[in-house]
Amino acid sequence: MNIEAFFKITYGLYIISAKANDKQNGYVANTAFQVTAEPPQIAISCNKDNLTSKLIEESGYFSISILKQDTSADTIGLFGYKTGKDVDKFENIEYKTSKSGTPVVTQDSIAWFDCKVKQTIIVDTHILFIGEIIENELLDEAGEPLTYAFYRDVKKGAAPKNAPTYIDKSKITSKPKTEQASTNQKYKCLACGYIYDPAVGDEENDIAPGTSFDDLPDDWTCPTCGSPKSMFEPV
Amino acid sequence: MNIEAFFKITYGLYIISAKANDKQNGYVANTAFQVTAEPPQIAISCNKDNLTSKLIEESGYFSISILKQDTSADTIGLFGYKTGKDVDKFENIEYKTSKSGTPVVTQDSIAWFDCKVKQTIIVDTHILFIGEIIENELLDEAGEPLTYAFYRDVKKGAAPKNAPTYIDKSKITSKPKTEQASTNQKYKCLACGYIYDPAVGDEENDIAPGTSFDDLPDDWTCPTCGSPKSMFEPV
Repeated sequence: MNIEAFFKITYGLYIISAKANDKQNGYVANTAFQVTAEPPQIAISCNKDNLTSKLIEESGYFSISILKQDTSADTIGLFGYKTGKDVDKFENIEYKTSKSGTPVVTQDSIAWFDCKVKQTIIVDTHILFIGEIIENELLDEAGEPLTYAFYRDVKKGAAPKNAPTYIDKSKITSKPKTEQASTNQKYKCLACGYIYDPAVGDEENDIAPGTSFDDLPDDWTCPTCGSPKSMFEPV
Repeated sequence: MNIEAFFKITYGLYIISAKANDKQNGYVANTAFQVTAEPPQIAISCNKDNLTSKLIEESGYFSISILKQDTSADTIGLFGYKTGKDVDKFENIEYKTSKSGTPVVTQDSIAWFDCKVKQTIIVDTHILFIGEIIENELLDEAGEPLTYAFYRDVKKGAAPKNAPTYIDKSKITSKPKTEQASTNQKYKCLACGYIYDPAVGDEENDIAPGTSFDDLPDDWTCPTCGSPKSMFEPV
């Protein structure tokens, strides 16, 4: 199986949200596509273990917020790498509630859809929800959507473990490590896959190229998901 | 329903192919996404009326070729706007046959997957096929995939009528037309939606900016799908 071929499939990045029994949650997804034009229906693929999946099953509704290209690392970190079992993701985020009562993230979003579940299909580890669009809104006509390729190539992000496109690289290849000078050593965020490269630095946090990982300030955090330095390991 | 919001969903462009009983066919699709990582499975959405849908149902296999960004208009015209009921689309195209016996378009492609159908789900006008990837290949490691946004914005293409994302604009809005000088009049290809704009010309066919539609050579054809001038109407 050639893993690199998978990276040629084009995806956007979205926040899927749902609410049931006074609990609301959302998560970052890269799989949403229109299935039919009449009626307009969209399919999403969610890991069975996601809290949001359970909320969708219980409520019969989900919303899709299309993320803009310059979505903040905080938004992706909160919805992509934290679990709603531990935190209330909507506490400090801009959102609205659709007519169906479903939460809709509007922060960093250029458009959204509210969908009523029409079919639920179990596909091994994931659930495919097919929803008919019952309400939608364009928030930013000129806004460019964030694509998974842009996120991966420019923001250096990786898929969370529960994503349909997650790849456990430890199972594929393991290049022999060579001893490197400490100052050139790259470090990887175990939460989101971001790699800190001293040769590049971290423009978002005003870290100049040439700064070794050890020399990063103690309060430096991952520019993609906000994890602390302790979440990093040498790669 | 805000139609413009749909254009913010990100898609790639692919050729889906299949073969059954010595008949092979393929068509351009924008809906293909990975559903699960283990086992690796991909979902596609095909119009029930497509010849390829019938071939997939009969054979139980389909291939997905990921189109490159600079895919030729001929390839898109052939696989996107012509029907395999009338022409043999594989007659003059580079392709190979996978181990399962499925045709795989390699022309203008940067990677491909061969999939064995695991689930078939009817969704109104369309069929969702979920296939497990049994063979794949990366043809061009540095190749950029053609995205639907690039095709629409840069190549000025529109979805064919059977696509999940087809939008019948006559049903939505109709801006009042103002009388325009003939030389500035834009013309739209009824087959694929390409719009000829005299202010832009048609670089692909060496037509300089400032050339009116009437002044285009009689043998000029749509740069996107190859249709003749007679397929165009003023917009």
